[in-house]
Amino acid sequence: MFGFNYYTPTKVVFGKNTEEKVADLIKEFGGKKVLIHYGGGSVVRSGLLPRVKGFLDKAGINYLELGGAVPNPHLGLVREGIELCKKEGIDFLLAVGGGSAIDSAKAIGYGVANDGDVWDFYDYKRKVTGCLPIGVILTIAATGSEMSDSSVITKEKGLVKRGYSSDFGRPRFAIMNPELTMTLPDYQTACGCTDIMMHTMERYFTNGGNMEITDSMAEALLRTVKENAKILAKDPKNYDARAEVMWAGSLAHNGLTGCGNDGGDWMTHKLEHELGGLYDVAHGAGLAAIWGSWARYVYKDCLPRFKKFAINVMDVEKAGTDEEIALKGIEAMEDFYREIKMPTNLRELGVKACDEDLKLMAHKCYVGTGGPKGSAKLLNEEDMLEIFKMSR
Amino acid sequence: MFGFNYYTPTKVVFGKNTEEKVADLIKEFGGKKVLIHYGGGSVVRSGLLPRVKGFLDKAGINYLELGGAVPNPHLGLVREGIELCKKEGIDFLLAVGGGSAIDSAKAIGYGVANDGDVWDFYDYKRKVTGCLPIGVILTIAATGSEMSDSSVITKEKGLVKRGYSSDFGRPRFAIMNPELTMTLPDYQTACGCTDIMMHTMERYFTNGGNMEITDSMAEALLRTVKENAKILAKDPKNYDARAEVMWAGSLAHNGLTGCGNDGGDWMTHKLEHELGGLYDVAHGAGLAAIWGSWARYVYKDCLPRFKKFAINVMDVEKAGTDEEIALKGIEAMEDFYREIKMPTNLRELGVKACDEDLKLMAHKCYVGTGGPKGSAKLLNEEDMLEIFKMSR
Repeated sequence: MFGFNYYTPTKVVFGKNTEEKVADLIKEFGGKKVLIHYGGGSVVRSGLLPRVKGFLDKAGINYLELGGAVPNPHLGLVREGIELCKKEGIDFLLAVGGGSAIDSAKAIGYGVANDGDVWDFYDYKRKVTGCLPIGVILTIAATGSEMSDSSVITKEKGLVKRGYSSDFGRPRFAIMNPELTMTLPDYQTACGCTDIMMHTMERYFTNGGNMEITDSMAEALLRTVKENAKILAKDPKNYDARAEVMWAGSLAHNGLTGCGNDGGDWMTHKLEHELGGLYDVAHGAGLAAIWGSWARYVYKDCLPRFKKFAINVMDVEKAGTDEEIALKGIEAMEDFYREIKMPTNLRELGVKACDEDLKLMAHKCYVGTGGPKGSAKLLNEEDMLEIFKMSR
Repeated sequence: MFGFNYYTPTKVVFGKNTEEKVADLIKEFGGKKVLIHYGGGSVVRSGLLPRVKGFLDKAGINYLELGGAVPNPHLGLVREGIELCKKEGIDFLLAVGGGSAIDSAKAIGYGVANDGDVWDFYDYKRKVTGCLPIGVILTIAATGSEMSDSSVITKEKGLVKRGYSSDFGRPRFAIMNPELTMTLPDYQTACGCTDIMMHTMERYFTNGGNMEITDSMAEALLRTVKENAKILAKDPKNYDARAEVMWAGSLAHNGLTGCGNDGGDWMTHKLEHELGGLYDVAHGAGLAAIWGSWARYVYKDCLPRFKKFAINVMDVEKAGTDEEIALKGIEAMEDFYREIKMPTNLRELGVKACDEDLKLMAHKCYVGTGGPKGSAKLLNEEDMLEIFKMSR
């Protein structure tokens, strides 16, 4: 068991109509001039953005708008946001949307509060010493960025996708109304559920320092998302299932499900980041496409955890050898992916990768992680390549 | 399912030797002149207090000391602390100890940051609008006050024991080194485990709005504390078991295990508060002594939850009627109390209560709760009296 820090200062306001509290929350956290940052047109079409602007108008809060955050948000828009904030004296960022808008807002916040080039942080050259305060109205349950310390940005040149983590980036508040997620396409809902589970699975599959209370709460979370993802695949307007998944999304990535261990494995995410950078696929689908291959490649080196996962999360019977039980757990997870229409390999993901692409991704992944990485099994560049090959 | 707010801004620093970070943390949260508040002599005898003072001296942080916080901390000491802080210009409170020192610090913090009589808040006459910042070095895993919004104070005149909750009272940081809890007497360790489980059980036994993820995480927490309390009853120096219980103590009462429900039942706590006020018994032992009687009195009105508790927490087999399963769960809980040497009635608690005392407590409880209360079953004054009688 390892020592740990746990810091989740984000004030969560959860439930129906909670977006109506946005102006009060911005005032509570000192915002006077706000940049509303969002992604595509869905928040406009749904009427959410006009409503939010109405709440701010009514409360007398000044604001500007910046749309255009895309999945795997781009550095160019971040730079544009930083310029805008500096020029206009923005003191608060309101992200309306999912992980793209929130991650992009975090990068903008770092760029405004710190001198120099914002990419330095994502290039692991410097650390931030502050961030503009951020509030969130969440419309997609997936990345957990609304409570987490992390953000992922893609540099267009070379399609370099990198994550950066800092407590300064944790949002001040997160408004979560499960109803706002009801209009999501089924594919995005399933991608979100996959991402949520993976945030906890990355922490769960380790060889170091696991804590009983963390494990059992992680398993509880995974079971809940699994069951409710299946409900949403058939009944996307189910409020309770939406709520279970939405709250699980925040808890899966705010640090709770990793307390006391060595920090987690995170190699499925690292491998997927290269997929996302090169092919611009949906993050959740990319994770599902790579996980089974990763799991089969590493499970013998992390057998107690894979066995525990199979029994406590995937309801595999305690019969046969540990390896058999572990493999049945991996198979059950892939069956679950199929049930919610997620891919289990690159072909199903719609990616035709040539050998050179796989080599390039393995190399970029190895360089990006800064050497061999992984807790379930330490992976070198050739291991990464092998997993990419298995996933084709 | 209900909407909810979730706000746990406390920075947790958990693990061996973490008390060495106290000066850095005080500085991080802006403390310049500190009141170190503690309870009896144990933190002096253990050498912790002198070490903490050494860390502050080395970092050049000014401080004063105020000891003497007792279980069910007294209003007199709170008033003394408020006077001292105002006179000396204290801007940060460091509680070193368990719930007594932390609760007392919260009340002092309210008294300094708000005009008028501090008892008004505990008498439900006014609400606080601020609190001096508080840091904690925790030495007893029990009340969860290190992350919670609540504090309990006893007014000496009439022995009135009251709780008050406000987000302003949540500590800025909590240093948790499980080793600091190893020298606790077994009785206090068992009392702490009882209190920790009860904070989650109070939230669990409701008739309103339960959420699947909250339930399953609550059950995970309860199982963990139950198993590790049994380990500690035999092996009090077991670091891992101390750590599991210590972290569970914070999670049991920071709000996590109540998200989405109607707020919980809390009647076992309310009934015990009267016991604590009149007889000054240990809080955890008081809870254990009253819980079985409360449970037997209310379980038919909250049968699905008692059944679920029996199966998922107490490992009762799914055989027989729901009532039989629920009763077996209550019996299993009482067996657990006996195993860790906690009382299951007032006699075992060492309290000989005459009829008049029971009537007085039921009346004070009814007045204190402001009318009939309870979610598992709504209790009137005569119900409260009946439960007290059953617990004799």
